[in-house]
Amino acid sequence: MSTYAIIMAGGIGSRFWPKSRLDHPKQFLRVFGDSTLIQNTVARLQGLIPPERCYVVTHERYVERTKAQLPAVPAENILAEPISRNTAPCIAYAAVRLLARDPDATMVVLPADHVITDVRKFHTVLRTAIETAQEPGALVTIGITPTYPATGYGYIQFEGSLDQLDEQPRALRVRTFAEKPDTETAERFIDSGDFLWNSGIFVWRADAIRDQMATHLPKVFQAFEPVAEAVGTEREREVVAAAFQNSPRISIDYGVMERAGKVYVVPASFGWSDVGDWRAVYELSEKDEHGNALQGNVIVHDASRCLVQSDDRLVVLIGLHDTVVIDTEDAVLVCHRESAQQVKNVVDYLYAHQLTRYI
Amino acid sequence: MSTYAIIMAGGIGSRFWPKSRLDHPKQFLRVFGDSTLIQNTVARLQGLIPPERCYVVTHERYVERTKAQLPAVPAENILAEPISRNTAPCIAYAAVRLLARDPDATMVVLPADHVITDVRKFHTVLRTAIETAQEPGALVTIGITPTYPATGYGYIQFEGSLDQLDEQPRALRVRTFAEKPDTETAERFIDSGDFLWNSGIFVWRADAIRDQMATHLPKVFQAFEPVAEAVGTEREREVVAAAFQNSPRISIDYGVMERAGKVYVVPASFGWSDVGDWRAVYELSEKDEHGNALQGNVIVHDASRCLVQSDDRLVVLIGLHDTVVIDTEDAVLVCHRESAQQVKNVVDYLYAHQLTRYI
Repeated sequence: MSTYAIIMAGGIGSRFWPKSRLDHPKQFLRVFGDSTLIQNTVARLQGLIPPERCYVVTHERYVERTKAQLPAVPAENILAEPISRNTAPCIAYAAVRLLARDPDATMVVLPADHVITDVRKFHTVLRTAIETAQEPGALVTIGITPTYPATGYGYIQFEGSLDQLDEQPRALRVRTFAEKPDTETAERFIDSGDFLWNSGIFVWRADAIRDQMATHLPKVFQAFEPVAEAVGTEREREVVAAAFQNSPRISIDYGVMERAGKVYVVPASFGWSDVGDWRAVYELSEKDEHGNALQGNVIVHDASRCLVQSDDRLVVLIGLHDTVVIDTEDAVLVCHRESAQQVKNVVDYLYAHQLTRYI
Repeated sequence: MSTYAIIMAGGIGSRFWPKSRLDHPKQFLRVFGDSTLIQNTVARLQGLIPPERCYVVTHERYVERTKAQLPAVPAENILAEPISRNTAPCIAYAAVRLLARDPDATMVVLPADHVITDVRKFHTVLRTAIETAQEPGALVTIGITPTYPATGYGYIQFEGSLDQLDEQPRALRVRTFAEKPDTETAERFIDSGDFLWNSGIFVWRADAIRDQMATHLPKVFQAFEPVAEAVGTEREREVVAAAFQNSPRISIDYGVMERAGKVYVVPASFGWSDVGDWRAVYELSEKDEHGNALQGNVIVHDASRCLVQSDDRLVVLIGLHDTVVIDTEDAVLVCHRESAQQVKNVVDYLYAHQLTRYI
């Protein structure tokens, strides 16, 4: 049995505007220091899954950029989505490709643009998940021990209790999956003690997810069935395009996880963040004694708790606190840290007003 | 008797960084709309003093730029200072040049970079000042009726009372000139009712200021005596350079006005501002319904009472209030409106760290 990573890199990340653009989405950004988020995602797996067993599923337009950023990952492991159809078709494609190479494969599915600070714990948790996934038909997710009543994450309710969590990770049966809650519901989830954040990290055998899809998502399964015979042939690209075209748009959470029988969650606390906006970048950044996280050509005077990033031009900040300034070649964002979620609205505005040069 | 304007354009205006630079000082900026401050200063005199009787005294390095911005002002009226020596030498030079042209000349001396919103009142006040200046030996200043206890201006104390000010301007004798006060003193000045802001606008006959300089600033007077014979000759530039070199560095306020006998002030309230910093620009700008003054390529979302100017790039502001953003080709300033005075400190920092490309 070999373990493979399936890195899902389909996102646009419009909340990272003006750094993230349509041709330069979040996973390719150097948000922290010298490496990009997708480079960190591959690097973080070393010791558990080598680059030659890492796969990336991304939109066609990002294939070349992905290859350039991940030279250690074999070019044939970069799988192109001709159109975005959410996670289920993406995982179906990866499973078919993997089964053609290794019928005994176990898949670790994970987003390309998250941050995990405790890599040792991350590996320990994944090992437990991989082991659990060897039970026939088992689907395993990683659930993050919540630290506050977040409304930006989905939740997973488990059976049993969280005692002795720090000692050794273990898999618990999943009771329910819950969508992103409102504040009141999130607080109830936290108080109950049996809810975890849905990290979007899944572990299963490739044959298990294929079988579960055949049962719970037959349309997706059938759409990708012809791909199995086309893998490695001249026809692959064309057959894959048809498969995505014929597949419904659905998430793996909703399509399979919420319906399948043997679903487990491994609770974890390895310093995880989905780095959803500039506020999260601030929180994850190293700060100086005034709480400022400054990167590039920046001068501050009487400023504190600010995130400032400049590619090239001089940015001067005076008398401001809790402020985010992101300077790029053709646009600059100046934003209160607590308003970081609203960056998405501005990108919507740019679309609505056809200001495409800035998208 | 003819009246001439002497526009003093020697300043650097480092508080308008990043728009003001060493080779592009405040008077040449389009701070409000399409015209620069110096263009507005000349335009504001129309109806009272035509461009051919306007003179500008500026640093050598700004002569060409001044000519380009003021095509209606004759090129020979742009007087070059080889070195900056404060206002007294500058006025001495202008007086000598003017007397060579018109021994009966009256001078209206005024800064190039101020704003006056009520031009009709401004002309009425100047007419009173010009009339007052015909009394032999009289020196006349314009004093602004203060609206708050400013600590950034000098003050002029007058004799008499301010009754019926709005009806018709009149000249009052000056009791004292006061330097920029601390807050407590400024409040006392305002409460007393007999203090005005020193506008830096002066009116006198050229022969009167020459005579007063001979008495109170003999070193300045003597330095510029040789210039009289050199006006219009090949030697002028060389002789003027020597005059500035030999002249002490002193202001006309301190050197003459505080010492002379017949000093008058005409109180005025014509919407004057010295536009000392970006906060003043905000206050003088037209605002939208959220109190924002936006110029250029700017998008705001949940922002109020902000001043944002962009030359070219897109500036996006989210969730901020009372914030100044000034975007230029190579630098961007992001500043709380109440911290606008501290921009000067940043320019000092740039000097101290030899970041000359930004100065």
